[in-house]
Amino acid sequence: MALDTARLLITCPDQRGIVAAVTGFIAENNGNVLELDQHTDPDHGEFFMRLEIELGGFGLDRSTFASAWQSVAERFDMRWRVCWSNETKKMAVLASKASHCVTDLLWRAKTGELRVEVPCVISNHPHLAGVAESFDVPFHHFAVTPQTKAEQEQQIRDVLQRVGADFIVLARYMQVLSPEFVQAYPERIINIHHSFLPAFAGASPYQQAYERGVKIIGATSHYVTDQLDQGPIIAQSTLPVGHRDTVDDLIRKGRDLERVVLATAVRLHTEDKTLVSQNKTVVFD
Amino acid sequence: MALDTARLLITCPDQRGIVAAVTGFIAENNGNVLELDQHTDPDHGEFFMRLEIELGGFGLDRSTFASAWQSVAERFDMRWRVCWSNETKKMAVLASKASHCVTDLLWRAKTGELRVEVPCVISNHPHLAGVAESFDVPFHHFAVTPQTKAEQEQQIRDVLQRVGADFIVLARYMQVLSPEFVQAYPERIINIHHSFLPAFAGASPYQQAYERGVKIIGATSHYVTDQLDQGPIIAQSTLPVGHRDTVDDLIRKGRDLERVVLATAVRLHTEDKTLVSQNKTVVFD
Amino acid sequence: MALDTARLLITCPDQRGIVAAVTGFIAENNGNVLELDQHTDPDHGEFFMRLEIELGGFGLDRSTFASAWQSVAERFDMRWRVCWSNETKKMAVLASKASHCVTDLLWRAKTGELRVEVPCVISNHPHLAGVAESFDVPFHHFAVTPQTKAEQEQQIRDVLQRVGADFIVLARYMQVLSPEFVQAYPERIINIHHSFLPAFAGASPYQQAYERGVKIIGATSHYVTDQLDQGPIIAQSTLPVGHRDTVDDLIRKGRDLERVVLATAVRLHTEDKTLVSQNKTVVFD
Amino acid sequence: MALDTARLLITCPDQRGIVAAVTGFIAENNGNVLELDQHTDPDHGEFFMRLEIELGGFGLDRSTFASAWQSVAERFDMRWRVCWSNETKKMAVLASKASHCVTDLLWRAKTGELRVEVPCVISNHPHLAGVAESFDVPFHHFAVTPQTKAEQEQQIRDVLQRVGADFIVLARYMQVLSPEFVQAYPERIINIHHSFLPAFAGASPYQQAYERGVKIIGATSHYVTDQLDQGPIIAQSTLPVGHRDTVDDLIRKGRDLERVVLATAVRLHTEDKTLVSQNKTVVFD
Repeated sequence: MALDTARLLITCPDQRGIVAAVTGFIAENNGNVLELDQHTDPDHGEFFMRLEIELGGFGLDRSTFASAWQSVAERFDMRWRVCWSNETKKMAVLASKASHCVTDLLWRAKTGELRVEVPCVISNHPHLAGVAESFDVPFHHFAVTPQTKAEQEQQIRDVLQRVGADFIVLARYMQVLSPEFVQAYPERIINIHHSFLPAFAGASPYQQAYERGVKIIGATSHYVTDQLDQGPIIAQSTLPVGHRDTVDDLIRKGRDLERVVLATAVRLHTEDKTLVSQNKTVVFD
Repeated sequence: MALDTARLLITCPDQRGIVAAVTGFIAENNGNVLELDQHTDPDHGEFFMRLEIELGGFGLDRSTFASAWQSVAERFDMRWRVCWSNETKKMAVLASKASHCVTDLLWRAKTGELRVEVPCVISNHPHLAGVAESFDVPFHHFAVTPQTKAEQEQQIRDVLQRVGADFIVLARYMQVLSPEFVQAYPERIINIHHSFLPAFAGASPYQQAYERGVKIIGATSHYVTDQLDQGPIIAQSTLPVGHRDTVDDLIRKGRDLERVVLATAVRLHTEDKTLVSQNKTVVFD
Repeated sequence: MALDTARLLITCPDQRGIVAAVTGFIAENNGNVLELDQHTDPDHGEFFMRLEIELGGFGLDRSTFASAWQSVAERFDMRWRVCWSNETKKMAVLASKASHCVTDLLWRAKTGELRVEVPCVISNHPHLAGVAESFDVPFHHFAVTPQTKAEQEQQIRDVLQRVGADFIVLARYMQVLSPEFVQAYPERIINIHHSFLPAFAGASPYQQAYERGVKIIGATSHYVTDQLDQGPIIAQSTLPVGHRDTVDDLIRKGRDLERVVLATAVRLHTEDKTLVSQNKTVVFD
Repeated sequence: MALDTARLLITCPDQRGIVAAVTGFIAENNGNVLELDQHTDPDHGEFFMRLEIELGGFGLDRSTFASAWQSVAERFDMRWRVCWSNETKKMAVLASKASHCVTDLLWRAKTGELRVEVPCVISNHPHLAGVAESFDVPFHHFAVTPQTKAEQEQQIRDVLQRVGADFIVLARYMQVLSPEFVQAYPERIINIHHSFLPAFAGASPYQQAYERGVKIIGATSHYVTDQLDQGPIIAQSTLPVGHRDTVDDLIRKGRDLERVVLATAVRLHTEDKTLVSQNKTVVFD
């Protein structure tokens, strides 16, 4: 059984003494560091760190941490966040018709492999109502046309707000979100693209891959930004294909990739193991 | 020890009875089929086949095969070629400064892993003379500038013609060949591109990959066509990278990919296991 | 949409003329060969072949094939079988408590990715009743103790017989089947072992892998024989692990491997792409 | 260009405050921590850490470090070592007849990819003299028979001592070293075994793999201990094979695995990224 922890994530300009100052602060407050991971980006002089501190015995909690920590954070000009492993995140799932990613995520949530609560599945099609129901997750169907797009997004955002979604997973949701939507959830919307980005961005990537005659296909999970298929990549995976594979075979093989790559990205996000900078991710796993 | 064989490669419009007609022809001439591989492209109604026929006991040889075979080939409107495994192909290697692919190919040729003769290494830089010498392979240095490009290509082609090169490997040769050069060796020039094409075509693919923050890098070996980095793909491979990898790390890791992917493509070509159609390869391995 | 086909699988001593005789027979009966795959085992002089023949236009069907084919089969001393792609196989699933493989198989069957009918899920524990129910598959719970093992196996076999199971998948069924059971379904029971066999055969393979400190874990799907974990291997896959992975992490990562490897083996079996000889499989994929 | 660093590696019983004490010590001595990696083994309550400290500006050097550090090390009951990146390690290579691993290591050393000096190649056969010579590395041939084994080992150890070898790579050296030899170089002898250990330990692993009919082969690099093929694993890799692969094909494919896995292990050792405990490695990469 994993111990409950505080997860402290830090980004700041690199300089001497950061690690000593941070770990000294933890030690002064009687905290036990279970994991420490650190990285320096030599190109931009940027420092990244993630610590997991055992909650048992730690002298600070969510009501007292920020004020105690303030002086260290200011001294090093840090962007930082602290997350508490015993606060289960709420993951909203957006999907269209394809069931493989949704089914997989709901199964992982239900069995506890992913430590998340799923307050809703939202779709622009009715097809996945039965899947959501079989996992006892509320399902919302908001149809969309080019004319009703703004209105439909508002319906979605109303649900997200009402259920208190912490982050959103686009589990093969086949609509492009508006910039306003994306900006409301910075680094908190995770998409799965069914190709090895940046190859085959845009629509019908398996068809594109088939036509190009590649010998490997891939899948990419990334944070969503204003730029379609251009956000920071969290996880990727590939597998071999051959001349015997039709587009349908690529789609079938790709489903196995997509499920695992998306689940990997969601796990990393849920465990607070990602930091974003320069449109890239640092993944402390 | 592998048996000596005739390798018969066929492309034609799909219809009933092709396999029966071909294998019937082989049987009538007392040939033993050791390998038969067949594929039909449903999109274009195109039929592909490769047979390996044991030379021992076979009633035909290179002087008699074509005329005997003619009527079958015409009946099905075939494009075809026959290759004899005991005719060692001559592989010319073009390179620039990087030694990893050249060293690897020469080592595989020397140990007999690749059944090829290497009549020359040609480079636009002098750096690899020692490598070629250590494998007893003649080395030719033809410097090139934008002004002397046509002349330098002619020097290369003179050597290729003189040594009787059957095919050409661009082992990290950093020059773009002219359309005339490429058309003189159709489906007989193999390049290694240091990315997972079509991602990061063109120059500095590892730098591009680093800037995009991908979690996987790749390498691609393909036949060279007029369109830069657009030719039919023969082999690809990938491996995982992370935020700790600098551009230099990607280059280092990529070298291991490039050597193996290029050697794989060369082996497939040498063993007559590739057929090209619609700018794709059928690989019978 | 895939065409309906007859799949003809052949094993016999190698000799000249087999391919010509078989494809000649197909051509005489106006059959169109869509796929032909062939292999010769040089160590044992054994010949293997698989053909897919388009049903449309083919002059033979399941009532007439055997008698027409008889003389070819006898001439070459063949073991052979013919399968008809439009006869959906019945796949019985045996499981214990773990839900990942069962859920995955039922999902693939329901969506049509696997062309099978699932007439039953049978378990020695009640835990998976809800999973089976959500896919509308009958669930049978037969508890077992060392004392009641023979009786419980009989209960299982009664169900299998009643539903007409064509083959059986052990989807993490944690009981060893008796030799009598196994012999009743030769080459028709598929197991998933949660290690890279032959490493870590027997119980608790992830614990064994953890203790040995391997850097890669695997999963193996094989046909079940009398010898525990020794049957012919159909499919295997691996993925990297590290010193940070606990036994629980290995189990979690392994689940993703197990599902895909088992589904791959089931797909190959369902599509009649496996031939067994010398305790190995020939896989024509 | 990588900065010169001190690499500090620590193993000790886990307790609060270790990281703070160590990084505090570095900060007091004006050191800049470039990399810090840390791991706790929950089963054995063991703490592992690796730091890279920039040499520029650091107040300690190899003559003063140990005495300054002594009190911290004692306080936490540490086993520790410090390595200086600008001290090039001397890597002795032992081989037999196979050239692929030796050629690969010498190439990587020559091009600077591996930051090592190679003072000798030693073999029980004369075959690799030319390879060593082409890289300007002294070659020693000491033939061995069962009767002369002790004497031949002494000849090897004399050379190793004379050239001041820091560590030894068994690059497909087909002799078992005596326990006395192994104990003289604890955690400093690296072997490549041509299978996915613990599968197919001992002789002829590719033959064993072929007979078992596995669908994946592997290679394993490990530190050598008294127990044959049982030492702590540093790196492993695998690749797919099929029924068409003969034993010779497995050997050929395996060579590509072996070279890369061995080079990976050597790089990790050279960069002081491995810690051994409980017959396993912690690899901080």
